Amino acid sequence: MKVTLNRSIFMQELQTALRAIPGKATMPILTGVKMELTPDGIYLTGSDADVSIETFLSKESEKAQMQIEQTGSVVIQARFFNEIVRRLPEDTLTIELLSNQQVSITSGEANFVVAGLSASEYPQLPEVSSATPLKLPIPLLNQVIAETVFAVSTQETRPILTGVHFILEENQLTAVATDSHRLSQRVIPLEEAAANFDMVIPGKSLVELSRSLPEHEEFVEISIMDNQVMFTTSTMKFYSRLLEGNYPDTRRLIPTNFETSITFNGPQFLQSVERASLLSNEGRYSIIRLSITNEGVMLYGRSPELGKVEERLSYEKVEGEPLEISFNPEYMKAALRAFKDSQIVIRFLSAVRPFILEPAEDNGNFVQLITPVRTN
Amino acid sequence: MKVTLNRSIFMQELQTALRAIPGKATMPILTGVKMELTPDGIYLTGSDADVSIETFLSKESEKAQMQIEQTGSVVIQARFFNEIVRRLPEDTLTIELLSNQQVSITSGEANFVVAGLSASEYPQLPEVSSATPLKLPIPLLNQVIAETVFAVSTQETRPILTGVHFILEENQLTAVATDSHRLSQRVIPLEEAAANFDMVIPGKSLVELSRSLPEHEEFVEISIMDNQVMFTTSTMKFYSRLLEGNYPDTRRLIPTNFETSITFNGPQFLQSVERASLLSNEGRYSIIRLSITNEGVMLYGRSPELGKVEERLSYEKVEGEPLEISFNPEYMKAALRAFKDSQIVIRFLSAVRPFILEPAEDNGNFVQLITPVRTN
Repeated sequence: MKVTLNRSIFMQELQTALRAIPGKATMPILTGVKMELTPDGIYLTGSDADVSIETFLSKESEKAQMQIEQTGSVVIQARFFNEIVRRLPEDTLTIELLSNQQVSITSGEANFVVAGLSASEYPQLPEVSSATPLKLPIPLLNQVIAETVFAVSTQETRPILTGVHFILEENQLTAVATDSHRLSQRVIPLEEAAANFDMVIPGKSLVELSRSLPEHEEFVEISIMDNQVMFTTSTMKFYSRLLEGNYPDTRRLIPTNFETSITFNGPQFLQSVERASLLSNEGRYSIIRLSITNEGVMLYGRSPELGKVEERLSYEKVEGEPLEISFNPEYMKAALRAFKDSQIVIRFLSAVRPFILEPAEDNGNFVQLITPVRTN
Repeated sequence: MKVTLNRSIFMQELQTALRAIPGKATMPILTGVKMELTPDGIYLTGSDADVSIETFLSKESEKAQMQIEQTGSVVIQARFFNEIVRRLPEDTLTIELLSNQQVSITSGEANFVVAGLSASEYPQLPEVSSATPLKLPIPLLNQVIAETVFAVSTQETRPILTGVHFILEENQLTAVATDSHRLSQRVIPLEEAAANFDMVIPGKSLVELSRSLPEHEEFVEISIMDNQVMFTTSTMKFYSRLLEGNYPDTRRLIPTNFETSITFNGPQFLQSVERASLLSNEGRYSIIRLSITNEGVMLYGRSPELGKVEERLSYEKVEGEPLEISFNPEYMKAALRAFKDSQIVIRFLSAVRPFILEPAEDNGNFVQLITPVRTN
């Protein structure tokens, strides 16, 4: 194996593969990156138990200026390799496999010789295929992830809730996440047909996917097989294991009757919640209180040791009955951040029933739910 | 106590005082900031055991738009106060001392009431005075600190070495730091006379001082009394305790005879050292090897488990005898960073004697010394 190519382009590739590579691993070879040099270009593979990333840098890429002298493959300790490549003196580098899995890395007058491992010891990636994969614009997939993944459970007591539930049926993609205290659901009507699916992807994988999807590409294809999902772009394959088990039926959780509704400017209300949450550690739980009366709308926070905060809120519109309701400000902050700049409407049934949040202009495609805290 | 003023100006003041305030303190009142409202303006004081900062915001400051309704003083939990001020909704805020040391903080429709502490419980700052304080340009003081403070010892076995030794005599200021493996010394000829001194300032205090000195001011005055030094600008007083004990006589440590000298482009040599240091953990110590022969100048690194690196170095000039010498790359990196962009000359006597580094263009005012590692 011997190749000479542009250093900064190779470094980008390496960074992408590195995202899947753990600092420590129970299988030591997984701290390495697998480099495969074929007549077509360079494949780099990184993997931990849950996520694998395979990148491809084509020989045809003009920027890569790739000169392949001999094909082959090897595994190199990834973080260390990355440090070396990053610090090389010139714009190009040459990587050569010597005898005994020794790898030579040369740039200008600097030469490194490091110990590699045989590529044959590296675990095989799963074979994933789907006759009609779902094709989505990358920004849309990133948006769906951002709108749901924050609501997954961080507790391992119900592992299935640590993932986002994706359902494709009747030309409609639904993504929903809940930790049983709050829920976030995004629905996307699809134009093209694709094979139906029903899967739960670990939240951590989705966060990593979102960071890894190339910015300069438009589309990603999603394929499923057994307990794996694969996201494919023209330069990258991203694999994640799926969570096993039945995801709870969340459709019946979202209420449809309401007694009170209030419309806020989202970012402004978020700032008020952030202020109130500074004084919200009443007892074990973090709680703030929203009061909607004929006299106005108030937000209260209190912390027995530190003090209290109160604020008269501006709002766009109030409808229905007066209400006093308490909730965890962390859930509210996360929900409001997911709505970004929009006007949002919050609909309540009573002080003890979950309430829902939606963009005021939305047609029901994005809805969040928060369970209040009973204070009496 | 009641005052209304511009929020962002007050926040800047608070940030400065906050630099001296520890997250946790053995005396709980030291996690607070003391706020003193006088007819002239606002004093804020923050302190840990070693460093105290007192800022002053004048009533005359146009930007502050200060309206003083009633003078007074109180101590407020500092990090919490900072969080509140940072999140307030409007451009101005009002701070008022209520009964029982309760403090009201109001901005727009948001009102906080938090528990304060009596200012009379806050420790007094030391009284420091000097008939003829030393006056230095702030950028020059920052430079001296940057050129020396990295070389102080981080070990508490010889506490005196954790500080920088400042000596003012014969109209010349000398700053020197050493951890007994390397040394850095800067000499500054002074134009104005000032009272002689000889003091050791903790390295940590100097790092904090450098961060705290206001960028928009030109000069700082340095006064000493007993075991305290005070740095004064028109808006800030920065106090630090001094280290007690005798600083070793470092003048005789700097050699004056040499057998070999080499001149490098500083930043280029630094990059080569950084590369070599990636593979430098031979045994317990980090070591790289420089070889100067008639065939050229080489730098070597080796790590039994990982591999090896070698690089042919470009240099400006070599004089004297061939030499092979090994040293800790961390010391070399720190030294080279302190020289910034200059050409540097390194002078050696032998492979086992400390060598010195100087800017090639310098007149002896900035010198560093590194002890090599014996490898045989």
